Amino acid sequence: MLTWVYRRKEIANSFNIKELRSVGIIGLGLLGGSLGLALQRAFPGLRRLGYSHRPVTRRKALAAGVVDEVCDRLGETLAGAQLVVLASPLGTFPEILRDLAPFLSAGTLVTDVGSTKVLPDRWARQYLPRSVCFIGSHPIAGSEQRGVEFSRADLFDFANCIITPTRSAKAKDVTLLTTFWEKLGMQVSRMSPAEHDKLLARISHLPHVLATALVNSVDPKETLFCGRGFLDTTRIASGPSDVWRDILMTNADPVDRSISRLIKELTRMQTALREGKDERIQKLLGQARERRNALVRKKLQRKELPV
Amino acid sequence: MLTWVYRRKEIANSFNIKELRSVGIIGLGLLGGSLGLALQRAFPGLRRLGYSHRPVTRRKALAAGVVDEVCDRLGETLAGAQLVVLASPLGTFPEILRDLAPFLSAGTLVTDVGSTKVLPDRWARQYLPRSVCFIGSHPIAGSEQRGVEFSRADLFDFANCIITPTRSAKAKDVTLLTTFWEKLGMQVSRMSPAEHDKLLARISHLPHVLATALVNSVDPKETLFCGRGFLDTTRIASGPSDVWRDILMTNADPVDRSISRLIKELTRMQTALREGKDERIQKLLGQARERRNALVRKKLQRKELPV
Repeated sequence: MLTWVYRRKEIANSFNIKELRSVGIIGLGLLGGSLGLALQRAFPGLRRLGYSHRPVTRRKALAAGVVDEVCDRLGETLAGAQLVVLASPLGTFPEILRDLAPFLSAGTLVTDVGSTKVLPDRWARQYLPRSVCFIGSHPIAGSEQRGVEFSRADLFDFANCIITPTRSAKAKDVTLLTTFWEKLGMQVSRMSPAEHDKLLARISHLPHVLATALVNSVDPKETLFCGRGFLDTTRIASGPSDVWRDILMTNADPVDRSISRLIKELTRMQTALREGKDERIQKLLGQARERRNALVRKKLQRKELPV
Repeated sequence: MLTWVYRRKEIANSFNIKELRSVGIIGLGLLGGSLGLALQRAFPGLRRLGYSHRPVTRRKALAAGVVDEVCDRLGETLAGAQLVVLASPLGTFPEILRDLAPFLSAGTLVTDVGSTKVLPDRWARQYLPRSVCFIGSHPIAGSEQRGVEFSRADLFDFANCIITPTRSAKAKDVTLLTTFWEKLGMQVSRMSPAEHDKLLARISHLPHVLATALVNSVDPKETLFCGRGFLDTTRIASGPSDVWRDILMTNADPVDRSISRLIKELTRMQTALREGKDERIQKLLGQARERRNALVRKKLQRKELPV
């Protein structure tokens, strides 16, 4: 049973977000870069500090204006930021948190935009001092493209963002983080890291596994004949494989279970086919059709999709 | 081993397609309607005869100008057509072929736009007189939408079309049919009905089964949080369930085998996850990524995708 509640923009601004003067972004790819652009739009005058371990990315990010300053040393760059956002691949988090810890002042709020939340939360508790607050975030936005050059100021518009405060998080920090993402145009929900990871295993990680399996199950020469259906169904398989390896590895058990659920559904269809049960087949197809159409209608209502 | 050869537009016009004066379209949905519009563009002056068993569809089709004439009796409408195209759901083919047979003059070319080819071919041999030539066609174009109101003149532009002549087909008719689809903007290939059905099981029917299984494997409330990935991966699950029931039922064995192949791929990923094999996971992800990116590049080169 899911215990979270779907939240719209009803949150009271108990924390005055106008006190936010500087944000640090670690990792300047599609997400980090788009965050920088969205910040400029939502918080004019905010100082945006950026870090990437690659010099070429730092130069590109500065040239593209996604941040105001870049630095080649992680801790020194971000020491002055009130809010620090990790936007690098999940696998880099432990090292970054460890390196960053000595430089953070008390009261700094640290979050991330990673696609799994249980392990980042554990790493934060392991590496960050107790005076620093860590609350995980997952803005559910992105594309199969990667790199700062694909950054878009509107990437987060109307998208869902799940934040995963644990019991130790202060209400003030939860509110600040909620308001922060809302100002960037997102619809914010809260749940526990474990609930998040189970949910995302089914609605995001499973589709990725499945797109990958579909591409790998077909001879590349055969796919030349495919229509739009195959291309759309497999689009996300073009996503960066190191990023997705990290996502799957840091959410292995829930993804494993979601694959089993899918195999069960596939077997249901296979059995109906073998037994020639046309009504059963149509029922399975019809149920999926109705559910997906209802989902699209709701997404349109909530402006998550262009009309 | 596949024996077909990928064909581009190198076919010589041995048959003068200009002799084509009238085409009959049976079934005036998205495909039949789009065919009517594409015919008007490619063959100005051609008489387009349309049949639908539903009066409201016939009225709509005439109003939308997708055909020039409609009739409420199948045989009489289409008796004068040199080329007849079945564009109704596969399950209607046996009855239509039986009802149509007495009205067709010798030399009429009959084809269809169905998504499977073995059974339509068998039905045509069963119901049509030997003086009438049947060659199956599969223009690989469409969308999850249905109905004549979604008809588009450009639906077939640059898309693949597979025709499936059997040994009894005359070279003249094969050439006519090839030229016919090429004039409508398609890239035509030939293979046997059985080869077609095996191929399509993997690149089209399997993606549909999989999109359906994905939607059905997730709680609808959970999908509210999904991003574009889930929506794209499941887009085709919004397709008409009766049409897809017929497709799956008329291609049950190849689809069954393709599901087994997919389950094997999913199990491969699942095993790697359970064993914590991060390199193996990245390899599976990387292979799919490279293959899909190569596919998209080729599709762009061949103008099957907008740049």
